[in-house]
Amino acid sequence: MTSSTQISNFDLYYWPGLQGRGEFIRLALEAAGVAYRDVARLPEAEGGGAKAVVGMMRSPGSWMVPLAPPILKTGDLVLAQVANILFFLGPKLDLCSEREDQRWYTNQLQLTITDLVAEIHDTHHPISTSMYYEQQREEAIKKAQAFVAQRMPKFLNYFENIIQKSTAGYLIGEHLSYVDTSMFQVLEGLSYAFPTAFAEYSGSIPGLLALRDRIRKHPGIANYLSSDRRLPFNEHGIFRRYPELNVPLHPNKDAS
Amino acid sequence: MTSSTQISNFDLYYWPGLQGRGEFIRLALEAAGVAYRDVARLPEAEGGGAKAVVGMMRSPGSWMVPLAPPILKTGDLVLAQVANILFFLGPKLDLCSEREDQRWYTNQLQLTITDLVAEIHDTHHPISTSMYYEQQREEAIKKAQAFVAQRMPKFLNYFENIIQKSTAGYLIGEHLSYVDTSMFQVLEGLSYAFPTAFAEYSGSIPGLLALRDRIRKHPGIANYLSSDRRLPFNEHGIFRRYPELNVPLHPNKDAS
Repeated sequence: MTSSTQISNFDLYYWPGLQGRGEFIRLALEAAGVAYRDVARLPEAEGGGAKAVVGMMRSPGSWMVPLAPPILKTGDLVLAQVANILFFLGPKLDLCSEREDQRWYTNQLQLTITDLVAEIHDTHHPISTSMYYEQQREEAIKKAQAFVAQRMPKFLNYFENIIQKSTAGYLIGEHLSYVDTSMFQVLEGLSYAFPTAFAEYSGSIPGLLALRDRIRKHPGIANYLSSDRRLPFNEHGIFRRYPELNVPLHPNKDAS
Repeated sequence: MTSSTQISNFDLYYWPGLQGRGEFIRLALEAAGVAYRDVARLPEAEGGGAKAVVGMMRSPGSWMVPLAPPILKTGDLVLAQVANILFFLGPKLDLCSEREDQRWYTNQLQLTITDLVAEIHDTHHPISTSMYYEQQREEAIKKAQAFVAQRMPKFLNYFENIIQKSTAGYLIGEHLSYVDTSMFQVLEGLSYAFPTAFAEYSGSIPGLLALRDRIRKHPGIANYLSSDRRLPFNEHGIFRRYPELNVPLHPNKDAS
């Protein structure tokens, strides 16, 4: 629940205009139904805009200087790195287990999602983040083919096996955790960026698709998704829909 | 201190024959001087070899199934992901601060190192981890050029600014942390993989080089580095020395 007038303990700083890595933090906060400020989406006159993010990176008002957003300011803490922010928020938002072993595993799975997200980003920027997509399109097509054929199945199969063993239908323990909301985002994003391959692979991940549908209907998330706080996927974020990268799961299937 | 006869609370599972991501765990354990078993480096007859790693991934004897090594088995816990393992080990090895804000920052910096390490790996595998280096050499040369020109300076400058503000000469707080041993590994690795560009950039990172030299002389680390437990860098790991990837910092300097 974003509001500039409410008192908030959580100020999120992320580039306006895209979901990006900030979305993993937003989804956790929205699932928990807590008030937060999405600072860069406020008008510049109220301290918002991309300027706010740059300002936090240059002068965070803390010794805890971050390298990149998302950045969460809460009390005296200035936290960066998605998995770090979520590990911190988990107990405060009731989005992780109380069991120590399950908390370590929650962090471990979130870091595995971090790896997957980096690979997804690199499908459209395999050579350099400083170059335009158009300058690395040929390499991107190769990378996207390798990703959907090998890496996407490897990661999703791993998570599918985990949820198949779950009795509660969540990735860890008996309750919703931030790994569930993060996996929801990954599944929605893969479906957006690689609609053909994702549809082809869907039959292999019934447990994950059931999780996705369940998260969509979670009261906090459903409320968020129907609001204007949820930005649509677009070609500035991690998950981008470029026609030439929408490659099939088995590129050589029809090549004989 | 690796020993198969000592009783150990820490069993590390990582591919034998390369430093890889396992090295970040080894360096922390060695700095602390605690006993551990580097299981895959034991003879196969004693349960070692790559088989041991595969076995831990397939049947870890725990509900905490990992996706990939390094894996640390300690008590009932089976932990994976470098930053997760180090966050767990930090307080136990006295390799992190007792201050909560500093612990979050330690995790944050380790995750920033994780990002850097992934980018370094991708300089030799920009298209696919399933293809040989030789199949993606042309793309690797482009990626390596972008890495040393833009990304390496961006990351190292960030860490240099942090250590320049340090009064104790460590990245966080007054004492050695696992972020220091991880940064040592990154600096040694970059110097191995990109000797030309790293030498060119060295003048910009005096604080980090002083840290590297200090860690080299740390009793636990010095003991380790002079032992046969420390594998040499080679072309199976993250940091690889390929002549064609040893590109200068400024590729166009002499092109006029």
